[in-house]
This record gives sequence, C-alpha cells and structure tokens, in this order.
Amino acid sequence: MLPSNLLVDLQNAFSPDRFYTDPVDCYAYAYDNSRKIFPPDAVLFPLTADEIQHVVLLCNQYKVPLIPRGRGTGTAGGSLPEFGGIVLSMERMLNIPSIDPANRVITAEPGVLNQSIQNAVKPYGFFWPPDPSSAQFSSIGGNIATGAGGPHAVKYGTTREHVLGLKAITGSGDFITTGCYTTKGVVGYDLTRLLIGSEGTLAVITEATLKLTALPAAVAGITAHFRDLSSCTAAIVQIMALPQLPSALEFLDAGSLNLVRGRYPDMLPVETHAMLMIEVDSPSDEDLTNAIFPILKACQSEGLILAKQEKDTASLWQARKALSPLLREIAPKKINEDVVVPITMLPYFLNELTRLSTHYQLHNVNFGHAGNGNIHVNLLINPDNMDEVMRAECCLDEVFDLVIKLRGTLSGEHGIGSEKRAFVTKEIDNTTLSLMRNIKNLFDPNNILNPGKLFPAIESI
Amino acid sequence: MLPSNLLVDLQNAFSPDRFYTDPVDCYAYAYDNSRKIFPPDAVLFPLTADEIQHVVLLCNQYKVPLIPRGRGTGTAGGSLPEFGGIVLSMERMLNIPSIDPANRVITAEPGVLNQSIQNAVKPYGFFWPPDPSSAQFSSIGGNIATGAGGPHAVKYGTTREHVLGLKAITGSGDFITTGCYTTKGVVGYDLTRLLIGSEGTLAVITEATLKLTALPAAVAGITAHFRDLSSCTAAIVQIMALPQLPSALEFLDAGSLNLVRGRYPDMLPVETHAMLMIEVDSPSDEDLTNAIFPILKACQSEGLILAKQEKDTASLWQARKALSPLLREIAPKKINEDVVVPITMLPYFLNELTRLSTHYQLHNVNFGHAGNGNIHVNLLINPDNMDEVMRAECCLDEVFDLVIKLRGTLSGEHGIGSEKRAFVTKEIDNTTLSLMRNIKNLFDPNNILNPGKLFPAIESI
Repeated sequence: MLPSNLLVDLQNAFSPDRFYTDPVDCYAYAYDNSRKIFPPDAVLFPLTADEIQHVVLLCNQYKVPLIPRGRGTGTAGGSLPEFGGIVLSMERMLNIPSIDPANRVITAEPGVLNQSIQNAVKPYGFFWPPDPSSAQFSSIGGNIATGAGGPHAVKYGTTREHVLGLKAITGSGDFITTGCYTTKGVVGYDLTRLLIGSEGTLAVITEATLKLTALPAAVAGITAHFRDLSSCTAAIVQIMALPQLPSALEFLDAGSLNLVRGRYPDMLPVETHAMLMIEVDSPSDEDLTNAIFPILKACQSEGLILAKQEKDTASLWQARKALSPLLREIAPKKINEDVVVPITMLPYFLNELTRLSTHYQLHNVNFGHAGNGNIHVNLLINPDNMDEVMRAECCLDEVFDLVIKLRGTLSGEHGIGSEKRAFVTKEIDNTTLSLMRNIKNLFDPNNILNPGKLFPAIESI
Repeated sequence: MLPSNLLVDLQNAFSPDRFYTDPVDCYAYAYDNSRKIFPPDAVLFPLTADEIQHVVLLCNQYKVPLIPRGRGTGTAGGSLPEFGGIVLSMERMLNIPSIDPANRVITAEPGVLNQSIQNAVKPYGFFWPPDPSSAQFSSIGGNIATGAGGPHAVKYGTTREHVLGLKAITGSGDFITTGCYTTKGVVGYDLTRLLIGSEGTLAVITEATLKLTALPAAVAGITAHFRDLSSCTAAIVQIMALPQLPSALEFLDAGSLNLVRGRYPDMLPVETHAMLMIEVDSPSDEDLTNAIFPILKACQSEGLILAKQEKDTASLWQARKALSPLLREIAPKKINEDVVVPITMLPYFLNELTRLSTHYQLHNVNFGHAGNGNIHVNLLINPDNMDEVMRAECCLDEVFDLVIKLRGTLSGEHGIGSEKRAFVTKEIDNTTLSLMRNIKNLFDPNNILNPGKLFPAIESI
C-alpha cells in the first residue's frame, strides 16, 4: 500500500485516467513476458519530463519504489514491481520532436514504438537497426533500457550502437543530458551507454536521439536445410568466416522446426533437422549476387539437404518470429535464456546442450541469432512437477557455467532483470559488481528506481 | 618532488631502466602534441597489471598524481603531468595475448601501437577501424582513453564501436573486467564505454578486447576540386544525403590547400579553393562502380572545377596527413580545435568561421572529417603577440558558442584534456557534470589518476 500522503499528492497532480490505483486497472501492469506476476500499488502515466521529475522526487520523499515500464515485452522480469510501488508507464509519451533525415537523426520520447520509428523514417529511406522480435509492440524506451538486439545485430550491432544521446531523470530526480546530436563526440564521460542496458535502475529516459541507417537497396533471403546439427553448426562457422557479414543468420534446431511444422504443416521438408535462415543485404543488386554465392558454398557438407535463395522470405520470418509464442503452447512453462558464446564455440556448445538436456531428461528447444553466437535456450517444463523444476535448475546452472567457460555471456539481449540475477556473479567478479552497485547508488541513493533488478541479491555475493 | 619514502618504495620495486627520476630522462614525457610542457617527477614503465596496481596503491598512500600515458600524440594535453607526479608510460606493455580471426577478435595490451594491431590482423583479412592520423605512432591504450576517431569514422564509427571489453585498474587500485568477448552482451552496466574517452581519469587500462572488421574488397578514391567554399560545402551535404556512406570524406579549405602546395608544388590546380578527398569502399568491384557515380554527381555545381576517380590516392592521403605537422611550420602556435556540427550546418558554420577569423584578424586554416561534421579549426597565432592571443581567445569563444548553438559538440575525437576544459560547461550542464565528477570520485576517491583533466576547474562552474 502507498503512504496516504503520497496518494493524495499524486491524486492532486494527476487525473484518474493517468493515475490508476484500483487493483483491477493495475493488473495489466503486473506482468511481462517472464510470466511472473507482481501487482503494483499504482500505475502512473506521465506525459512530460517535469511530471516524471515530480514523481521521482515524491518517491524519494516517501521511499516508494518506482518502476519505469515500456510495453512489458521483456522476458527477464525487468519491468515488474517486485516490491510493489508505482509502475511508471511511459506508453503515453509518444511525441517525435524531430525527424531530420539530412542528418540521419530522429528524436523521440520513450513511449514511441520501435515500429513507429521505422514507419516514421522509412519514407526517407532509413531504418533504426535494433529489431527485437517484439518491434511492433515494444517501445524505444524499453529497447534502450534493455540494450535490445535482434536478427540484424550480426551486421548492424545492437541499440548501443544506434543511440547518440539521451535526456533522462536520475533516481535522485536530476535532469541530465547525455551524448550529442552528431555522430562523433567525446566530451565528458559516456553516460549514454551507461544508461543503455541499465534496465531503468539508474534513470528514467525522457527523450532519445537516435542515429538512422540507410535501408539497403537490395536484400536476399537464403535457407539452408541440414540433416543433422553438426553440419548446420559447421556452416555457421564457415559463413561467419566470410569477409562480408550476413544481415541475419538465424538458427533453428530440430525442436524449433517441429514447432514450426505444427503451425505450418507444409513449410519444411521432413528430413530437415537443423536449419539456417540467412539474409544478406547490399547497396546494389550486383553486389548481392556476389554475396549469395559464397554463403551457399559455405553451407556445403554431407549433411546439407538444400541451400537456396528464397523468393519470398516473409512467411519464413513470420514462422521464426512465431517460435517464442509457439513454445508457450507446448509447455506450461519455458525457461528462456539468451546466452552468447564465441562463434567458433557454437558447435561444441550446441552439442553440449543436447548432452545436458538428455542427462537431465528435459525437453530443450534452441534457436536464435547464430551470427552473434546468441542462442535462445528454452527448457520446457511443467512447473507443477517439482522434480522436473529441480532438474531444470541444475541443467541451467551447468549451461551457464559452460557459457562462461567458453568466454561467452549470460545475456545477449534480454538482460538480467530478476530472472538471471542469481547468476550474475558467474560472469562479473565481485569487485566490478561492487563498482556497479556504487554507480547505482550514485544515480539513485534511495534505491527508488526498479529496486532489486540487474544485481544479485546481496546475500548471494 | 616525490616523497622520499615513495621514491624508496618504487626504487625497490623497479629497476632504474623502468623508473626514471632524472629530469633529463623524464623530459621526453613532459609534453604531447598540445606543445605544453609539464615535467613529471618520475616516469614509470610497468610491464604487468600487478605492477600497475602496486603503483596505484602507493600513489593513493602518498597522494601523488599518476598520469597514464600512451605515446603522447594527443593534442589536448590529456597526458601531461600538470601537477607533477608520476607518468605511467604504457609503452612497454606490448603483448598481444591472442589473435582470434575466426571470432574476429584480438586482445592486446595498451602499449601496442594502432599500426601494430593493423599489421597483426591484416594477414587474416581484417582491420581495426579507428584510424587517427597518428595511427603509426599512437597506442591502442591512448586511442581508447581518448575515444579516437579518424577519416574512416564516417562509415565505421569511432573507438567506442570497436572495443568489446577491457581489463583495468581503477584509481583506488581495484582490478575490474568490463564487457565481454562476444559481439553481443548486456550483463551489468556498460563500464567499457564509460572508460572509453575517460582520458585516464577513472582507471588504467591493462588489456583490451578489440572487435575486428573485414578489409573491404574494393576501395576507390575520388577528389573534387571547387572554385569556392560554398560549392564544396553544398557537395558535402549532397554526398551525405546519399544512402551509401563514403568510407572517408575529408575537407580541405583554401588555407589547407596552400599548405599542401607549399610542400607538394605540382599536386593541385591553382584555381582550387576548396577540395574534398573522398573514399568509397565495398565488398565487390561491381558495387564500387555503383557507389562512385552518385558521388561524382553529388559534387556537380557551377563552382566545381573537376571531380574524378583517382588511380593513386596514396600521395593525396600523405598530403592530408601532413597538414597538421605542416601547420607547425607556418605559425609559432596553432590553436587546434576539433569541433563537430550536424552535416547540414557545415555550410553555415564554415562561412561563419570565415567571418569570425576576418573580424578578429586571424589566420584560420580548416580541414577535417566533413562526413562526420568534424572540422579541425586551426587559429594560427604568434604567442608573443599578446593582442593576437587575446583576439584568438575571443574568436574561439565565439566559435564554441556557435558550435553549441548549431547542436554540435566541442570535440569529436581529440578530447578535453586540459586544452578545452574551460569550455566544457558550454556543452554539459552543471547537473550532468556534477554526476560525472561523482563518477570520477567513485573510481578514484583520492583524485590520483590524471588529476585536473577532462573537467573544468571547480571555480569556473
């Protein structure tokens, strides 16, 4: 429950349609794609930076958690009000103050959907490269808070590479302005990237200056079907050794392909047990032809069934994007990880995943952004089966240890949120983590902003 | 003078060839390319991270400044021991622990020259994109500390985009490890980019994990000669509006061209008063041809003398790289700035520069990375002429105000160091700056590391 004085202050400042306190109204803000549920005490919809500052200062005064939220599409629980408090839903901050194609820049408020940015800049021949599967529904504020990636990250990088500057309000209620409006700039510390991926624990982003990229003139899709996993992973390593990077290199294992077959019965040959969806793009058609041939060649092996350019890739991409929701249909719960290993370690890593899931008698479905070594490992479990839950936890622990041993990282794009915080110390040493905690404390001394996220609980250190 | 106990401690730990205290030996570490002179009390050449930690802890104990130094090629005074103390020269940390072409990664100690990185990875078909003019002489530690750019930043970005992770020792002597070994990773706060461009004020970098990029298969050079400045700047805007970015777009004004003529008499037509040196690169020859034509077309105007593809661009690049040293020959002192403005503001900005230098009766030579809007503004003065010095200071102040008004930044690649710190508050508001100071204090509570750099003096706030 919120302190009654705070409630009065907020009711005075915000009309009822911008400040929800009825649990029924608040319930839609209790969950994200981690499927955990933590109902907030209230939901607030700010429209301006000044309003946000006002709320941040009040939350400091009353020591009440404030949880910035984009559109709740995150999978790591990063936007959930675990300790109650106020959800600060940015979904109504939808202004696009400027579109500046001549300088390849757009400025936007955090609630603007990723897709709305794409729509706004496409007429000028541009796109904004970060492309999470949720692009149609997720906001740029959320994309920035999580450091979102997507299939095109293999060629274009992630959010980090495509934000020039930010306006934000720190946990102590200070307005700050980071970065610049130009493609180069080295004045002061890089607070822009410090905020990118900080999961709303340091500051509330109120405006972003985004760098735009020219849409490629030519795009081609290639699919490669393999009889076995090892031929497929060998092809990934070969493709990534080519000088020209593909614009997407998505991997689907046998389990993923079966999911696709369930939904789209005639799409895939029966003997395909692993598959690559590859995209190349280019500034010209001539170059595209030159890019396709070496990729087809890199796929060659005894295990290859067929590698070919696809005329229409839309349905395939639709199937790929449907994978995550489809998993929901076959298992009551999935433990969804997005670990990363160096490309050359992928063959070994995917073999080990098979071994581990067999050992722990778990149903395991893997797919993901192979070009970055970023694999979505899904352990499908019944949460009511305690034995299975325990086996999954042991398996996951081994998977994470393996990832770190192979010089990988626990998360390529989903972030830590609450889901992975128990494992952070596997990757980050205590000294570095302690420095990060001190940075958190500097931005947010009362631990108001999204408390408990990103860091392991103190006792686990 | 160093405290005698510290001197004894260091003499015990380091042999005389790795610890200089004789002022004559130390003198080579008293200056950088800002041409200011601040002799250190000692120069220390560490070989390992452990040694660096030992020195950092001693400097904390004795409250003695420790100034990390790459190869002293910076132009902003960032590596100078303004308040005395110990210069920590990284020049002997030259190991390259791993070259991993299959994963497009190299790890290197901070003393490794930029050029040595290029030489090490070229046989595998890669390069490391940051390419300051000093690449042959500057170290990657220095490149990272300053966030170095160069001509190719227009297509490839700067240092920030090409470092995956760092090992470092903070000002309080803690070992930290930042970032990861893979191209994607969002675990914890982005300390990697916080250190990039921090000018040695937060931590001493002991190892860097660098992301490699495939060398382009095809490269072409184009030169465009213009009768007047405005035709040239109009061409810059047109070229940067094309979808495919050039890999370099360098601008030379009339003053720069005269400098080149002095050294290379027959290189340039007499009627050329502004010039562009353009490079395009591509994964294939076919695409290159497609890229050249629109650029030649974008250069068209009444003021164009000639735009053409050049067979041999090496001599031109040599001339471009010689500009900065050549300036030294014609004026006892140059005030060298590296401001950035949005591309569309370049025509107005360069006109205003002409107006301002005329108004203040100053000799002004401008060139630089036009594709990023990054112009090296050089005010050439005689430091013994106090009236000229005063006029230059007034002019510079107006230039910086103009840059900020046009949504630009005071430094695209040189950094703040000591040269620009008086002007930082023109760009960064006091709240944000105060947060940066607190970050500094967190990493380096005794203000041991490179004290006084990057921030304006307290009294100027």
